[in-house]
Amino acid sequence: MSLFLQIVEFAGVAVFAVAGALAAGRKSLDLLGVIVIAMVTATGGGTLRDLLLDRTVFWIARPEYLVVTLAAALLTIPYVRFSRPPEKFLLIADALGLALFSIVGARIAMALDAGGLIAVVMGTITGAFGGVVRDVLCAEIPMILRKGQIYATASILGCALLVVLDALGVPANIANVAGATTVAVLRLAAIAFDLSLPVFSLPAARERDDP
Amino acid sequence: MSLFLQIVEFAGVAVFAVAGALAAGRKSLDLLGVIVIAMVTATGGGTLRDLLLDRTVFWIARPEYLVVTLAAALLTIPYVRFSRPPEKFLLIADALGLALFSIVGARIAMALDAGGLIAVVMGTITGAFGGVVRDVLCAEIPMILRKGQIYATASILGCALLVVLDALGVPANIANVAGATTVAVLRLAAIAFDLSLPVFSLPAARERDDP
Amino acid sequence: MSLFLQIVEFAGVAVFAVAGALAAGRKSLDLLGVIVIAMVTATGGGTLRDLLLDRTVFWIARPEYLVVTLAAALLTIPYVRFSRPPEKFLLIADALGLALFSIVGARIAMALDAGGLIAVVMGTITGAFGGVVRDVLCAEIPMILRKGQIYATASILGCALLVVLDALGVPANIANVAGATTVAVLRLAAIAFDLSLPVFSLPAARERDDP
Repeated sequence: MSLFLQIVEFAGVAVFAVAGALAAGRKSLDLLGVIVIAMVTATGGGTLRDLLLDRTVFWIARPEYLVVTLAAALLTIPYVRFSRPPEKFLLIADALGLALFSIVGARIAMALDAGGLIAVVMGTITGAFGGVVRDVLCAEIPMILRKGQIYATASILGCALLVVLDALGVPANIANVAGATTVAVLRLAAIAFDLSLPVFSLPAARERDDP
Repeated sequence: MSLFLQIVEFAGVAVFAVAGALAAGRKSLDLLGVIVIAMVTATGGGTLRDLLLDRTVFWIARPEYLVVTLAAALLTIPYVRFSRPPEKFLLIADALGLALFSIVGARIAMALDAGGLIAVVMGTITGAFGGVVRDVLCAEIPMILRKGQIYATASILGCALLVVLDALGVPANIANVAGATTVAVLRLAAIAFDLSLPVFSLPAARERDDP
Repeated sequence: MSLFLQIVEFAGVAVFAVAGALAAGRKSLDLLGVIVIAMVTATGGGTLRDLLLDRTVFWIARPEYLVVTLAAALLTIPYVRFSRPPEKFLLIADALGLALFSIVGARIAMALDAGGLIAVVMGTITGAFGGVVRDVLCAEIPMILRKGQIYATASILGCALLVVLDALGVPANIANVAGATTVAVLRLAAIAFDLSLPVFSLPAARERDDP
């Protein structure tokens, strides 16, 4: 990975750790619980990606990632004690983190010649899975499934664009920027205009109780 | 794996994807959520098996599995919109999927000389873990644990029979059919006759709140 | 690992299996569900550690661990049917299991030259993650996050002491005993004196519902 991508990846890890710490605040967890949730949110997606692709887990290869998440979580705690967090800033930061992680994840799969579909899946897992684990640990239906928001959808579409541009021979940097921009713009537009996918409900299935 | 087993495995993946999509319908998820739940239900068991056995994850080695789950989920959505799903058919299909996945999982472990106990565990994980992840994502206690139904139990007994027959020198195809039939018949009998294991409740422990 | 450590590790697996079976009793699971929860509680932490460190999963390398958890779970069931379990004994046993698993996990990471921070994370995962999975399967917020108890914190501090002593050249056995004692004493003191970390609550974040 280029130095630029690495720097932005560290920023993405930190942003997700902050988002995780704020989410944990909703649940009356103790200090350690907040830190654990923050670290899981920031590292969960990349960890699953690396396990699935049989790579060395990124934060084991570079423990600096853990230090960054720890620092971000610890800095978030006193901050939110004394001032109301600017939610819009966080939504924007989270969208940027999603955009970056999606592209990094897709690129890692592409570097292993894993094919376009796997690249999209890995990009989406890298971007969105940390939040899924966070919600599961908080005993909630993962918000990306439940809310009908354009979240994983943004990641999927941005990664798909990246794969297509790459197949067309577009230079890597341009494809990266186009893909990441797509993710971020879709996600931010969804927030700004309250867009959502249709909710799928199945009345006839409600009585089913088979496994 | 033989071509026949591969074909049946694709059918099992599709069946589980349909079951996952129907289960997701109970939870008012959005379209993407339904697809994610369907794919996780269909691939979760095999994914955990491959991670534990340090094999290449099957849908990374063969992304066609993802295409099949995606197609099955997408086809399920309009179908259930317009007609009441035949639940008995689905229970039967799910039981067949469980039977097949169990045998495939156990066979993969046996091919790695992992021993009989590990083979049974891997068969059961392959057959039942996808549904566990589905329920965890839906913030429910996994139905195979909760309901007292003969589900994982059917998988365990069928895999154990497979291991015993294999140790006795019975030809692979016969052992496979005997094991799979055992899983399917036990599961279908449990549905037909409403069989269940005894529920285990521990009054004295209800007050415990230690971790 | 030394023979002594292996023996104690088997004891730890058994103790955690008993604790898991008792926890499952709170949830009206069926017999198989109790066994599954017991096995997951006893093996979950070591399994995640081995996946992250790309080692052969310990209970696949040595299926005897599964036999021990199975036996412990099966022996627990009739016992708790007929007598009220001595909860203090279980808390003590659980604390000893936590202490041992933490040190074993940290030592395994150190043997791979994974660095001090990773050793602490792996020790904590080995000791505490099984209980996290147990609670997630029971659709609860993991108790170690929720209750404000000194649980993972004890593991973190004991592992950190082990890493420091090791870096100072203290002989392995002494460092092991010092680390494990620290974990156990902190955990037991937390139980005896009802110590807890401050609960972190974030009023301003309660209205947030972004992912």
